[in-house]
Amino acid sequence: MENKFLGKINSPEDLKKLNNSELDLLCGEIREALINTVSKNGGHLASNLGVVELTVALHRSFNAPKDSIIFDVGHQCYTHKMLTGRYEKFVTLRRENGISGFMRPEESEYDPFITGHASNSLAAAYGIYKANAISGKGGTAVAVIGDGAMTGGLAMEAMNNIGFSKTNFIVVLNDNKMSISSNVGSVSEHLKRIRLKPGYYRFKSGTENFLLKIPLIGKPVFKFLSKIKRAFTRQVYKNNMFETFGFKYIGPVDGHDISQLENALKIAKAQSQPCVVHAVTVKGKGYSFAEQQPGSYHGVSAFDTHDGLAMNNTVNFSSVCGEALCRMAREDSRVCAVTAAMTTGTGLEEFSKKYPARFFDVGIAEEYAVTFSGGLAAGGMKPYFAVYSSFLQRAYDEIIHDTAIAGLPVCYLVDRAGIVGDDGETHQGLFDAAFLSTIPGMTVYSPAGYDELVGCLKKSLDFSAPLAIRYPRGKEKHPFKFTDTDYTIYGESASVAIVTYGVITAHALAAQKALEEKGMRVDLIKLNKIYPLSDELCARVSDYDKVFFFEEGILRGGIGQHLMSLTGHSNFKIIAVDDKFVPAASIDSAHKKLGLDTESMINTVLGENANG
Amino acid sequence: MENKFLGKINSPEDLKKLNNSELDLLCGEIREALINTVSKNGGHLASNLGVVELTVALHRSFNAPKDSIIFDVGHQCYTHKMLTGRYEKFVTLRRENGISGFMRPEESEYDPFITGHASNSLAAAYGIYKANAISGKGGTAVAVIGDGAMTGGLAMEAMNNIGFSKTNFIVVLNDNKMSISSNVGSVSEHLKRIRLKPGYYRFKSGTENFLLKIPLIGKPVFKFLSKIKRAFTRQVYKNNMFETFGFKYIGPVDGHDISQLENALKIAKAQSQPCVVHAVTVKGKGYSFAEQQPGSYHGVSAFDTHDGLAMNNTVNFSSVCGEALCRMAREDSRVCAVTAAMTTGTGLEEFSKKYPARFFDVGIAEEYAVTFSGGLAAGGMKPYFAVYSSFLQRAYDEIIHDTAIAGLPVCYLVDRAGIVGDDGETHQGLFDAAFLSTIPGMTVYSPAGYDELVGCLKKSLDFSAPLAIRYPRGKEKHPFKFTDTDYTIYGESASVAIVTYGVITAHALAAQKALEEKGMRVDLIKLNKIYPLSDELCARVSDYDKVFFFEEGILRGGIGQHLMSLTGHSNFKIIAVDDKFVPAASIDSAHKKLGLDTESMINTVLGENANG
Repeated sequence: MENKFLGKINSPEDLKKLNNSELDLLCGEIREALINTVSKNGGHLASNLGVVELTVALHRSFNAPKDSIIFDVGHQCYTHKMLTGRYEKFVTLRRENGISGFMRPEESEYDPFITGHASNSLAAAYGIYKANAISGKGGTAVAVIGDGAMTGGLAMEAMNNIGFSKTNFIVVLNDNKMSISSNVGSVSEHLKRIRLKPGYYRFKSGTENFLLKIPLIGKPVFKFLSKIKRAFTRQVYKNNMFETFGFKYIGPVDGHDISQLENALKIAKAQSQPCVVHAVTVKGKGYSFAEQQPGSYHGVSAFDTHDGLAMNNTVNFSSVCGEALCRMAREDSRVCAVTAAMTTGTGLEEFSKKYPARFFDVGIAEEYAVTFSGGLAAGGMKPYFAVYSSFLQRAYDEIIHDTAIAGLPVCYLVDRAGIVGDDGETHQGLFDAAFLSTIPGMTVYSPAGYDELVGCLKKSLDFSAPLAIRYPRGKEKHPFKFTDTDYTIYGESASVAIVTYGVITAHALAAQKALEEKGMRVDLIKLNKIYPLSDELCARVSDYDKVFFFEEGILRGGIGQHLMSLTGHSNFKIIAVDDKFVPAASIDSAHKKLGLDTESMINTVLGENANG
Repeated sequence: MENKFLGKINSPEDLKKLNNSELDLLCGEIREALINTVSKNGGHLASNLGVVELTVALHRSFNAPKDSIIFDVGHQCYTHKMLTGRYEKFVTLRRENGISGFMRPEESEYDPFITGHASNSLAAAYGIYKANAISGKGGTAVAVIGDGAMTGGLAMEAMNNIGFSKTNFIVVLNDNKMSISSNVGSVSEHLKRIRLKPGYYRFKSGTENFLLKIPLIGKPVFKFLSKIKRAFTRQVYKNNMFETFGFKYIGPVDGHDISQLENALKIAKAQSQPCVVHAVTVKGKGYSFAEQQPGSYHGVSAFDTHDGLAMNNTVNFSSVCGEALCRMAREDSRVCAVTAAMTTGTGLEEFSKKYPARFFDVGIAEEYAVTFSGGLAAGGMKPYFAVYSSFLQRAYDEIIHDTAIAGLPVCYLVDRAGIVGDDGETHQGLFDAAFLSTIPGMTVYSPAGYDELVGCLKKSLDFSAPLAIRYPRGKEKHPFKFTDTDYTIYGESASVAIVTYGVITAHALAAQKALEEKGMRVDLIKLNKIYPLSDELCARVSDYDKVFFFEEGILRGGIGQHLMSLTGHSNFKIIAVDDKFVPAASIDSAHKKLGLDTESMINTVLGENANG
C-alpha cells in the first residue's frame, strides 16, 4: 500500500516524532489499511477502527516493549500490530503462518501476553506489573479493556484485587457504548449514565475548588458549610463504580482526540494509586457502513469494501439452531435461551425479539450464564445456553457443580465445536468433548447436519439432566438426517471400521467411497451420541478386526479413548489432536494437517492396512 | 439433646409463633447444638455460630420452601437445617448417609440449590426468581452471601446482571469482617469503611431532609444551595459499591439483632428494585474459642469442646508443601506463592509472613489467581498457585488460555486431590487428573509421600512450561521417597501388574504383599509423573499379560484410559470413579466403596485372575 507515514513507523519510537497534523494523516492511513486487509482476510473491523487514536496515544505515552500494553480480547490490536513493526506483514492477517488476529507473544515482543478470551488483561498485566516490581527491572503494564469485557468475572476479580493497592497500575477503559451484543447490566448502565452527563462527573473538581474558596463567615454558615464540605470530600470522590473499587477515575475522555488521551494518560501516570482512564470511542469510526452497523462488523468474513456487505451470510448451524429454538419456545413456555454476549453469533436474534421475557443476554459472563441457567432449571424452566465451545471452558466448574451434581436439565448448545479456522489457538473448540465427558450424568450429542441438529434439539425437551449438543462453525457438509439412534452404520459387512462423529463424518463418507473404488471395503460408524457410549455400540465395534477413530478434538480424554477403553480393542487407532494447540488456518487446511480430511483418512486406512 | 424450643421447631412456620425472649432462648439452644455436633463430627463452626440470628430472621421474614433461600457456600446453613425439619437428624451431620454439611436439594425441599463452591448463590437464586416470574407460580428467592464469596467473579457477574433490573431481588450480605483468610481487595476494603463509619452512610438521609428544608433566601445563596442540592440528590445516593451496581443498599444492620434484621428485610421487600441488606455478624459468636480464632475454626475436624483444640493438627501434605516452598523462596527470589483465600488450608501461613512481597492471597478468585500467575510468569517470576483440586475446576479455561498456550511456567499445587471425605460431592478432587491431562504442554506429578512432594517441588524450578503437582488431603500413608523417575516398579518378574498413583499406592503395596502371602506374585507400578506418560513406561506395561489400573479419580479421561489407549493392551482393567459423584463419607469408607482400598484391590486381582 502507498502511504506517507505508516510505512515508516518501525517501532513506537517513530510515533513520538510526529506532530498533530501528521498524526491525523497517519490515523487515516491506518484506517485505510484496516479496511483493505479486513475486507480481504476477514477479522474484526469495527472494534479496530474504534481504537486507532487510542492506540497511537498509548504508544506515544508509554515505552513498549519495556512497558507492557495488553489489549483485552485482542481483536482490537490490529493498529498496535501495525505500529510495532508488523505493518509489512499485516496483509497476512489471520492467514496461515501470517499475523494472528489476537495478541501473541511468540509473534512479537510487543505482545506481552496471549489474548483472545475476554477479560484476562487486567489480571495478566497486573501480574507483569508486580513481577517488574519484585525483580526491580522497571517498566509498567497497562490493560486496555472494552466495556463488554469489563463485565466478565475475571476482570471484576482483578478490579477487586488491584483497587486500593498502592500501585500506579493503569486500566484504559475503551468504552464503545456496546459490547458485542447490546449490553445490559450494571457496568454498562453505569457507563451510560457517566457518558450522558459527563459534566456531572467533571463537576466535582469545580465544586471542590469552589467550596475551598468560600470565606467562612458567621458560625451557622460555617457549620453548615463545613458539614457540606465534609460530605463532599468524603462522598463525592466515591461517586462512581471505579472509585468504589479503589481506582482513581479519569474521564470521560474523547477516545478519538489524541491530545486529550495523552493528557489523561499523563495525569494517570502521575498518581500513586491505580487509575481507570475512561476513553469513549466510536466503534467503526471512519467507515460509514461499520459505524452504522457495528454488530454486523464485529467479527466478519471477507466482504466487499464498497457496499460493506459480507460475502456469505446465509444458513449455517447457528441460524438453524436459533430457528429451531424459536419453534420450540412457541410450543413450550418453559423454553428459555441464554447467551453470553453472543446473540448474533449463536443465531438467537429472532428468539431475543420474539421471546424477550425468556431471553437472557448476560454479557461476557459464561460462569454466570451456567449457574443462572441452573437456577432457571431448578425453577422448572428448560434453559438453553448457546455458547462457543472454547468459551464454555470458562464454566467447567459451574457445569459440574451447579448443574450436574443436582442433575438439572440445562441444555448446552455448544457452537463452534471443533476447528474454527482463522481465529487460531485461543478459539478452537477442541476440548469440549473431553471435558464434558468427564462430568457424571452428562449426555453429549454431536449432530453433523441441520436436520440432525433440529432432531437433537427436539429430543432435548425430554431430558431431565444436563445435556450438551455440539455443532461446528459454518455450514453442513452433508445433509445428515436425525435418526434418534446412538449411532449410524454405513455399510455392514467389512472387517475394518472407521468411527467418527461431527462434521468430519462427511470426509469419512467420501473416504469410504474412495476406498471402495480402490477395492477396499470399510464400514463407517457415525456416532450421534458421543457420551455416554452404549454397550450395543461397544459390542458392534468389538466385532471389527480393525478400527480407525477420527476425532476433531483433543486426543487425551476424547471420545476415541473412551470407546477404545470400553471395548478393550487392541487394534484401535485414534487420529486426533495430540497434546498440541492448533494455530490459525482455514478449516480445510487445519483438517488436512491434523489428518482429518478425506485424503488423509484414505491414506491412514490404506497405510495401516499395508502395515497392519 | 434436652431443650425447650428447638426440638419443637418442625418448620419455619413454628418460628413465627415465638416472641422475642423465646427467640433468644432458641438461639442459645441452636448454638449449643452447633457446638456439640461440630465438636464430634467436625464441620464449619465459626461461620455457623455467626448466622444463628440471621437465619432465624430470614425464616421469619420469608415463606420457605415457597420462597427459596440459598446460603452461598452453604457451610453456614446448619441453623437453616435445624429449623427446616432436620434437627433430629442433625447429629448425623457430615456422616455417611447423614445430613450434608452443605445445601443439598435431594436432602430437603428447603435446600433449593446445591452449594459448596463459593459465589454461586446470586446467579442460582436469580435464576429461580426469574423462573418463578415466568411461570407465574410466585415465591421469591433470596441469596445469603458472605463478604469473602462476594469477591468471586461469578458473584460479581451476577451483581452486574441483576443490578438496575426492575426486580425486587434481595441479597443478604453476611459481613463477618473476614473471608476464610483475612481478605484484601476492594470489596473488603469498602465494607470495612462502611462498618467503621456507619453514620457516614446513614448520614445521607438526614442531610437530604436538611437540605430540602432550607429556606431559599437571596439569589446567590439560592444558586449555591440549588447547586449543592442537585449534587446531593444526584450523587450522594450513589455513594457505595452496591448502589453503583444498581442495588438499593440497606445497612449496616446488627446481624445478631433479630428485630433489626427483620425490619431491614421488611424494607427490602417493599422496594421495586434489587436490594442488598448488609448484616454485620461476628464469626464464632457465642463461643469464646471460636470468636477469638475464627480462622482456626473455619473448617475443623472433631475437637474438644472444653479447650477448643482440634484433635489432630500436625504434619500433612499441605504443611510439608508450605515449608518446602519457604525454603525455595529463600534461595530463589523468583519464587512467588498465590492462594485464593486458602492461606491456612494450603499451608502458606509461614510463607505469607516471611515473604509478604511475593505472597498473594487474591481472595475467592481462582480465575484471577491463574491469570495473575500467568502474568507473574510472563514477567520472569516462578509462581506457585496452591489450590484445592475441586476449586481449580473454576480456572480450567484460564489454565489453558492464559498459561498453556504461551507455555508459561506456572506451577499448580493441587491440594486435596482425590477423595476429601466428609465435605462430600462438591469438594471431592476427582477431576483434576482428567482435566489437566487434556491440556497440551501440561505436566502432572502425583507424589504419594512427603519426601516425594518436596522432590517434585524442587524439580519444578527447572520447568519452563505449566506444571501441576497434585497431592491428597491429610497425611502420607507410606513414606515414599522422591526418585526423579517417571515411575517406580515394586517387584519385576510377575506376569500381572497393578498400576496406580497417588496416596492409594500405599493400599496397593499392602495388596501386593497380601497377594504374595496367598501365593500370587503381582508387580506394582507406581506412576510418579502421571502426564504425559513415557514410551518407556508404555513398553514396560505392555510386557504384562494382565494389568489392573486403580485410579482415585474419574474414569473417563483419566490416566488409566490414557495408559490403556497408549499401550493398546487388551487385558487392561481400570478401577476408577465411573460416571458418578462420590457422596460424603470418611476417606477410608469412600475408598472401600470405590474398590480402591487394600481389600478390594486384593479381591479384584484374585477375582479377575480366577475368571480371566
